[in-house]
Amino acid sequence: MKKLSHLNESGEAHMVDVGNKAITQRVAIAEGRILMQPQTLNMINEGHHKKGDVLGIARIAGIMAAKKTADLIPLCHPLALTRVAIELFPHPEISAIDCRATVETKGQTGVEIEALTAVQITLLTLYDMCKSVDRGMTMTDIRLVEKTGGKSGDWKSRGTARRTPTHEKPK
Amino acid sequence: MKKLSHLNESGEAHMVDVGNKAITQRVAIAEGRILMQPQTLNMINEGHHKKGDVLGIARIAGIMAAKKTADLIPLCHPLALTRVAIELFPHPEISAIDCRATVETKGQTGVEIEALTAVQITLLTLYDMCKSVDRGMTMTDIRLVEKTGGKSGDWKSRGTARRTPTHEKPK
Amino acid sequence: MKKLSHLNESGEAHMVDVGNKAITQRVAIAEGRILMQPQTLNMINEGHHKKGDVLGIARIAGIMAAKKTADLIPLCHPLALTRVAIELFPHPEISAIDCRATVETKGQTGVEIEALTAVQITLLTLYDMCKSVDRGMTMTDIRLVEKTGGKSGDWKSRGTARRTPTHEKPK
Amino acid sequence: MKKLSHLNESGEAHMVDVGNKAITQRVAIAEGRILMQPQTLNMINEGHHKKGDVLGIARIAGIMAAKKTADLIPLCHPLALTRVAIELFPHPEISAIDCRATVETKGQTGVEIEALTAVQITLLTLYDMCKSVDRGMTMTDIRLVEKTGGKSGDWKSRGTARRTPTHEKPK
Amino acid sequence: MKKLSHLNESGEAHMVDVGNKAITQRVAIAEGRILMQPQTLNMINEGHHKKGDVLGIARIAGIMAAKKTADLIPLCHPLALTRVAIELFPHPEISAIDCRATVETKGQTGVEIEALTAVQITLLTLYDMCKSVDRGMTMTDIRLVEKTGGKSGDWKSRGTARRTPTHEKPK
Amino acid sequence: MKKLSHLNESGEAHMVDVGNKAITQRVAIAEGRILMQPQTLNMINEGHHKKGDVLGIARIAGIMAAKKTADLIPLCHPLALTRVAIELFPHPEISAIDCRATVETKGQTGVEIEALTAVQITLLTLYDMCKSVDRGMTMTDIRLVEKTGGKSGDWKSRGTARRTPTHEKPK
Repeated sequence: MKKLSHLNESGEAHMVDVGNKAITQRVAIAEGRILMQPQTLNMINEGHHKKGDVLGIARIAGIMAAKKTADLIPLCHPLALTRVAIELFPHPEISAIDCRATVETKGQTGVEIEALTAVQITLLTLYDMCKSVDRGMTMTDIRLVEKTGGKSGDWKSRGTARRTPTHEKPK
Repeated sequence: MKKLSHLNESGEAHMVDVGNKAITQRVAIAEGRILMQPQTLNMINEGHHKKGDVLGIARIAGIMAAKKTADLIPLCHPLALTRVAIELFPHPEISAIDCRATVETKGQTGVEIEALTAVQITLLTLYDMCKSVDRGMTMTDIRLVEKTGGKSGDWKSRGTARRTPTHEKPK
Repeated sequence: MKKLSHLNESGEAHMVDVGNKAITQRVAIAEGRILMQPQTLNMINEGHHKKGDVLGIARIAGIMAAKKTADLIPLCHPLALTRVAIELFPHPEISAIDCRATVETKGQTGVEIEALTAVQITLLTLYDMCKSVDRGMTMTDIRLVEKTGGKSGDWKSRGTARRTPTHEKPK
Repeated sequence: MKKLSHLNESGEAHMVDVGNKAITQRVAIAEGRILMQPQTLNMINEGHHKKGDVLGIARIAGIMAAKKTADLIPLCHPLALTRVAIELFPHPEISAIDCRATVETKGQTGVEIEALTAVQITLLTLYDMCKSVDRGMTMTDIRLVEKTGGKSGDWKSRGTARRTPTHEKPK
Repeated sequence: MKKLSHLNESGEAHMVDVGNKAITQRVAIAEGRILMQPQTLNMINEGHHKKGDVLGIARIAGIMAAKKTADLIPLCHPLALTRVAIELFPHPEISAIDCRATVETKGQTGVEIEALTAVQITLLTLYDMCKSVDRGMTMTDIRLVEKTGGKSGDWKSRGTARRTPTHEKPK
Repeated sequence: MKKLSHLNESGEAHMVDVGNKAITQRVAIAEGRILMQPQTLNMINEGHHKKGDVLGIARIAGIMAAKKTADLIPLCHPLALTRVAIELFPHPEISAIDCRATVETKGQTGVEIEALTAVQITLLTLYDMCKSVDRGMTMTDIRLVEKTGGKSGDWKSRGTARRTPTHEKPK
């Protein structure tokens, strides 16, 4: 039977031993969405941000956060990430911005948490920069989309009814 | 007309001047939810965690993350938080755990972002501790619920149809 | 004749070159003790902590601190730890709690300092959580117990008269 | 009856609300000792350290660690320290170095934990710098000596039999 | 006679006591310059950066670094900054970019070091982003331009022959 | 044609993929200078610093900063440094102190930025420690001197007219 690997036989938390796991190429992709007022999305997309600062800053914050993951998540192993990329996809039709983070490393443990951290902090930075005009923004559907590498092998989200991503127009 | 306060007249980002804002008592409450498989919630609630580690660790991670907010969010002001509390509410009927973070300070700027950071990292720590049994968990409906204090005054979420919180049984 | 490796020929500090050392499996175990009032130990063990929070939080703090070692100790090399485990052993007969930290990595330098950092911060977190009832708690006998791996080979503490650990009842 | 203030009524950990506590001048003094081989103390005191690096670096590490306390100790409030001083007292007669840290702030909560963190990391930095010649060094008797300010008032250690500090010759 | 305030009477470093200094409004402005190949400046200004990322990212890095100053500079007091602004001024005529950082706080000690940290990390981020095309870039003339507030009063750089700033065209 | 590797085809910043680069031994050497009043250099060299604290502390700050580079520079990869050495060369004839940092790793990307960070923070720590007597100190000529290892091969600064380093008397 499966069990929570972060707890030992006594039910106590530990940082699990990955010393005997193979060093493999590992990739994780995570996504999430922030819902906002239409005029907030307009402000981000047009007028007040001709230098692209809002989306650009959010991406930078997400990249930097990925590097801090082991500092934030108690039982997460420190990892030397070899790649972090953040994409932001505005969706005017639903007044939202989607975020996708791709993280890679060559190591003994995966980078799922790093990708999820990057998504969360990217979205929260968008919130921070727009909160003076729209405090009701909601961050939602933050989840792992796929991961490759490692003993547990590849994994893909089954794409539930919870969400219909429509990522046609990357920006 | 409202504008994004983090951008100056040239559209460049800056950490806005709060030096002339009044020092007031400020409170922010944020919430969020993580959806999981029923058996994952069972594992958290029963059997494998007789010492409460999973929920307890997630709370600690959220509290510590609130203190790191200014380090994570580029234009966020550093603040000396005077209180951080994290509550977790398991919802077996929808196979989810809700998180509510309350953050307070006496300062020149609000603690909304700190409360949202605490919610995000609490939920992500739950994800991290359970990912070996349920990689498809989704974090959702992360939003500000209310804030008090400061020049912009009090604010409450309008409770949209997006979510019906049922927080009867705190654990 | 032996010398302090952190000082160069001019007596100046540097982070010593480990680039030519072999990558080996390295383990370090450190221990320490916190002495307290009997009623403080009672409060931790019984009544007020039915969810195990005090010991659990201290363990988490120690694990997280192990990951911050290179940030705290000036000449310590950054290392990707592969395992951190913290055990706490209450000793009602001497009104103390003992802490043992085990840290592992596969790298070019050892993890003794990481294990000692973990012990110190675990004990200090116990102090912090109980200081409102017992400010006189004392942290003592913090030392390396054994280390394996690396050029200098294995090492074991000679178990001096300074201390008689009685770790029969792990909790 | 006294209770552990870091746990709420449900026994869950939180960062306690200090928002209503008075802002007062607060001072804390902590001490600790590291025992070593006589020749290790000689190496520190003479020969290899004509520029005072070993003790000087340990002091710097302790000062910097005091500033990181809230990052290390989960439920500790962030505080803007106004003073940190570290003194080191070599004791050739017992082959030890004593450390005393004095920390001050003007704030709503005390600086005991900051002073203890400073002592621990100062001693551990001494260990780190000398471990190549003496792995058996032991850090001991780390404790609060006195604190002033705050609602709970002044407090002094009762100077138990555990330790006879002999701080005649500051260096 | 003046002396180095970071050293006590024994010549040992400490974090100086600012507890009795008045809380005043404090501003510091620092500047610096990075010299590069003309084609590097062209790449930054035109073509490859239509979204302004290079200058925007450097500004963000400088703002975030200002918040980390007390973590980087050993004897620097932690401060709650109330404002950080970074301006970048390309100078095609000398193939350079100038950086000016303005930092403010209301506190017991000044923000000169925070402003200088912001300039240094802004310039270094420009270097990092362009190093693949121009490894010979040089950062130069990094200095305090003026500071106001505090017991030592206002101070202005005497504008030496070392540098003739020509900041006509902010970008 | 060369381009800025930190921007992707859309001109968006990312942390570039180094996963396929060879693991090689990499060394980077950077230098910089701080200009000061003659009496400031005298104070550092004589009288008030008989324990060498000023230069020693600056070196430690530079070493610790090198380890924080990936935390400071947004798109910099985290790296496990294997060596950091900082040398300081006082130049009474021009009333300056030169700094040289040597950083090494065995990894997939270079350590140029780490060496430059070390130089900057070493110089800024000198500024911080002496600012009470000389606010006009200027940090200048901070640049990469040479780097070896990696796909782009070895590189040496062409020693331009910008600077005539005279490093005869290391201290």
